[in-house]
Amino acid sequence: MKSVFKNIVLMGRQHTEGVAETLNTLVSYLQERNINVLIEKETAIIVPAHGLSVVSREQLENNCDLIIVVGGDGSLLSAAHFAADQNVPVVGVNRGTLGFLTDIRPDEIDNIGKILQGEYIEEGRFLLSASVQHQDHIIATKLALNDMVLLPSEINRMIEFTIYINGQSVCTHRADGMIAATPTGSTAHALSGGGPILHPSLDAIVLLPMFPHTLSSRPIVVKGDSDIEIIMAEDCKACPNISCDGQELIPVPSGGKIEIKKHTNELRLIHLKDYNYYETLRGKLHWVNGC
Amino acid sequence: MKSVFKNIVLMGRQHTEGVAETLNTLVSYLQERNINVLIEKETAIIVPAHGLSVVSREQLENNCDLIIVVGGDGSLLSAAHFAADQNVPVVGVNRGTLGFLTDIRPDEIDNIGKILQGEYIEEGRFLLSASVQHQDHIIATKLALNDMVLLPSEINRMIEFTIYINGQSVCTHRADGMIAATPTGSTAHALSGGGPILHPSLDAIVLLPMFPHTLSSRPIVVKGDSDIEIIMAEDCKACPNISCDGQELIPVPSGGKIEIKKHTNELRLIHLKDYNYYETLRGKLHWVNGC
Amino acid sequence: MKSVFKNIVLMGRQHTEGVAETLNTLVSYLQERNINVLIEKETAIIVPAHGLSVVSREQLENNCDLIIVVGGDGSLLSAAHFAADQNVPVVGVNRGTLGFLTDIRPDEIDNIGKILQGEYIEEGRFLLSASVQHQDHIIATKLALNDMVLLPSEINRMIEFTIYINGQSVCTHRADGMIAATPTGSTAHALSGGGPILHPSLDAIVLLPMFPHTLSSRPIVVKGDSDIEIIMAEDCKACPNISCDGQELIPVPSGGKIEIKKHTNELRLIHLKDYNYYETLRGKLHWVNGC
Amino acid sequence: MKSVFKNIVLMGRQHTEGVAETLNTLVSYLQERNINVLIEKETAIIVPAHGLSVVSREQLENNCDLIIVVGGDGSLLSAAHFAADQNVPVVGVNRGTLGFLTDIRPDEIDNIGKILQGEYIEEGRFLLSASVQHQDHIIATKLALNDMVLLPSEINRMIEFTIYINGQSVCTHRADGMIAATPTGSTAHALSGGGPILHPSLDAIVLLPMFPHTLSSRPIVVKGDSDIEIIMAEDCKACPNISCDGQELIPVPSGGKIEIKKHTNELRLIHLKDYNYYETLRGKLHWVNGC
Repeated sequence: MKSVFKNIVLMGRQHTEGVAETLNTLVSYLQERNINVLIEKETAIIVPAHGLSVVSREQLENNCDLIIVVGGDGSLLSAAHFAADQNVPVVGVNRGTLGFLTDIRPDEIDNIGKILQGEYIEEGRFLLSASVQHQDHIIATKLALNDMVLLPSEINRMIEFTIYINGQSVCTHRADGMIAATPTGSTAHALSGGGPILHPSLDAIVLLPMFPHTLSSRPIVVKGDSDIEIIMAEDCKACPNISCDGQELIPVPSGGKIEIKKHTNELRLIHLKDYNYYETLRGKLHWVNGC
Repeated sequence: MKSVFKNIVLMGRQHTEGVAETLNTLVSYLQERNINVLIEKETAIIVPAHGLSVVSREQLENNCDLIIVVGGDGSLLSAAHFAADQNVPVVGVNRGTLGFLTDIRPDEIDNIGKILQGEYIEEGRFLLSASVQHQDHIIATKLALNDMVLLPSEINRMIEFTIYINGQSVCTHRADGMIAATPTGSTAHALSGGGPILHPSLDAIVLLPMFPHTLSSRPIVVKGDSDIEIIMAEDCKACPNISCDGQELIPVPSGGKIEIKKHTNELRLIHLKDYNYYETLRGKLHWVNGC
Repeated sequence: MKSVFKNIVLMGRQHTEGVAETLNTLVSYLQERNINVLIEKETAIIVPAHGLSVVSREQLENNCDLIIVVGGDGSLLSAAHFAADQNVPVVGVNRGTLGFLTDIRPDEIDNIGKILQGEYIEEGRFLLSASVQHQDHIIATKLALNDMVLLPSEINRMIEFTIYINGQSVCTHRADGMIAATPTGSTAHALSGGGPILHPSLDAIVLLPMFPHTLSSRPIVVKGDSDIEIIMAEDCKACPNISCDGQELIPVPSGGKIEIKKHTNELRLIHLKDYNYYETLRGKLHWVNGC
Repeated sequence: MKSVFKNIVLMGRQHTEGVAETLNTLVSYLQERNINVLIEKETAIIVPAHGLSVVSREQLENNCDLIIVVGGDGSLLSAAHFAADQNVPVVGVNRGTLGFLTDIRPDEIDNIGKILQGEYIEEGRFLLSASVQHQDHIIATKLALNDMVLLPSEINRMIEFTIYINGQSVCTHRADGMIAATPTGSTAHALSGGGPILHPSLDAIVLLPMFPHTLSSRPIVVKGDSDIEIIMAEDCKACPNISCDGQELIPVPSGGKIEIKKHTNELRLIHLKDYNYYETLRGKLHWVNGC
């Protein structure tokens, strides 16, 4: 067999049951097929005595034609930020339950073989770039494949902010927080809060106030290339934070601003040819198919 | 003043207070500016002794550079189907409350003057085409600027149907009904049922099951160019009907199919240059702006 | 075995698969135990050559110590109105899927034996009485164990009405319709429309506007002994109807009134001693139990 | 004038505009009517040179026949815990916007006169008692007139817990958090999360999961005298806290338990005779009354 991918980097998260086992199976499977297998630095800790070249997340670009992530959707999220920026395609092997992003089962390892032979589809999933600013100074910029969540640092504290889209003010909210989600993230946190499902191919962003005081508030779906600004009220007592894809918290100062726009690079997500988005959706949401 | 529109057709609905008065004011205003004013056939009944040329809805194309609709959003909806198909732009003068589509106030008639001088923006709003079929035979095809609603003919009867998008089955619903809405219609009936607000510039369609038995059902937003099919269960007892933009009912047979796709022609909707979608939204939904 | 119930009436609905079979099994099972088995008049049609005494729904009171309903929740609803008024307890044997009201499985017929021996709990479930009135004239009065639903006779038509509770006006709605539900009915139609779950022991009624135009509308839960009045607007174009427990439609005139109050008699619903409401709920709604 | 209340304690919160002014007006008004006016200790700081006897929140019982709270609903909430336990009635004078609990306007001070003359109604509003426990050891017990909110200490972290009612397990949730609200609190935080409105006279508690992963989760309304237990999962990474009526946070250990039950003492809330709950509701929620 001739693989279309010569150099493959393996990634996975510690502390997740079965990840090490699947990683080892993959190493053997790939090496038997004469593929140069590398392992991501933090992942390397999980698999002692692997004998593989180690590569850091920041150096994927020149070393790697494909990333295989083993784990849940959370693991893939954390790999996605690096993969998108370095333009390397990613495929996800789930552990346990099928994920929205990790759609290859570990017990169907031959499916990896199909992908190596080029029998796959590549789907572009866009990311958000959220930048926290104060008085025209950028405090931090983070990427999100799923969502940016804005929440106060203390529970049961309301925050107040105004949403602007393409320079037009939309609404001032007093709320528990706010979510800005991509289509990929529309089935994550936002869905629990009454947000709509956006098909992954839709070029759109959904803005969802969390527990808004104004009861007529509704999720808004805007074009993917919209410039979104969230401006915090001046006298916000409960210091709000943002978190992108559930990662570290960035504090937003009173009167500060969050700029959200589509990131320049997309994630290149690999699926099997028979990938069916709606089938995953039905499985996850216990939907019925057929009368 | 030289008007960019030479021939203008007036349209309005009977039985709405103040429509006749505004129509008369418009006739004088436009004739003073040497515009050829025509009146739509059914509208003509409202304004006796108008002395204007009468034109039918089907014959706008060659007679008309602009349609002015006087009334509420419902009046504009009914004009929109003809206007879109004949490629004539439309502007709405509301009676009473500001509409989402009829955004010029009758007491600000000079705004019509601005539009005549070319100080306006033209916005394309797409329509849906819903076609009821049975055994490959097309029973009827209707247009919708807002939405297509599917409901049983009897209250408190459930219907059962399966949604397909681009040939892939999405979900089988047992529900009171279903709404397929354009961004324009996302703030109409669908909004009352928990649907999201889609910005009018978004090329997307929202599908909303009404009172679905499966509690994990959620509205789905798909690309505007999706091929949507709704296939009715074979043994549906409560004869379902569709209605496009709240107009006449089309019965859907058991086992029948509704095909929904974007209509080829868009509605050309005219707004003043300072038109602000979010301002209308805030006004309608009692949203707050500013801390 | 000595049964605590001497005379038992069997009820079931035609056209439901397996009902006849379960009825026959029950006849043998009960007759072996020397119980006087009767059959309801319409049910008798399903079981030819049954040789049982036939009794009509209106004459249960003097002939019957227990009603066994075979079928789904719909069958039990239709029996409940008669059973409550004649003060006869009811137990439900489901066909196929477990119901909220029919909680004995047909393949566990020995559970019927337990009930005969007095190993059961009796739960009171209150009913609503909905009376349609016009100009102080009562047009019709109907009972509802689940709910009263108010809907227009045509789809996509809005109705307008004002809700009064204990003489105080609550809100004027423009909506698709309205549901008034008992705790029993809170897990039926109202649940699909975003209503809360009311525990069956709660003495309360939930009022739920359907697709209300006022987006800040929310379900209201009031005391079970509240006097609820729904007054229709004077110029309602779309003739509204009510339906109690999904049964025949009663038209409500423009300016007419619907009076809803708790019915004097409760339904006496029989469960096994290990009956667990939350277990049924979890099963029906795919809820998880245990970490 | 002879007042039915001889000793009145004034309470208010610092930092709220206009509170000092209204307090001074009240002092004059009450002293002119020969009422013994006392001031709560922390409130005394707001009104320098008041010359009134100072009383602490813990010593109201023997010194006081009525508490007048000046401020918003938040001020009344904080007074309510002390007032309920010491069985002293409370009336609220709002500052600025009308509250659900503070329903006397400061510019209608003669309404206080009516209350002094006995022209009032007294309404009992029950409180919740929430007790955090671990291994049968009570860590803390707090009162809530509105609600108990359970949330993780970090944003975007899910918590896992099981709800038990009267010893029966209801559901295991993975969610952002949970609210348990009284009817009084049903129009506060819980309402923003899709909870129903419970009429204040209803003896019921609503349990609302916040952003639950299980999409078929719904608010549950149970009897006011229910024993509610929330048991945290053993390995909860994000340390959850509870907050009662938005006051200080109590951490809940992994595997810990929260017991919620109705508090023994009710709040005695004073209203004018023409108090109309639904009028307040309509005002707050922009509901329409009348066709």
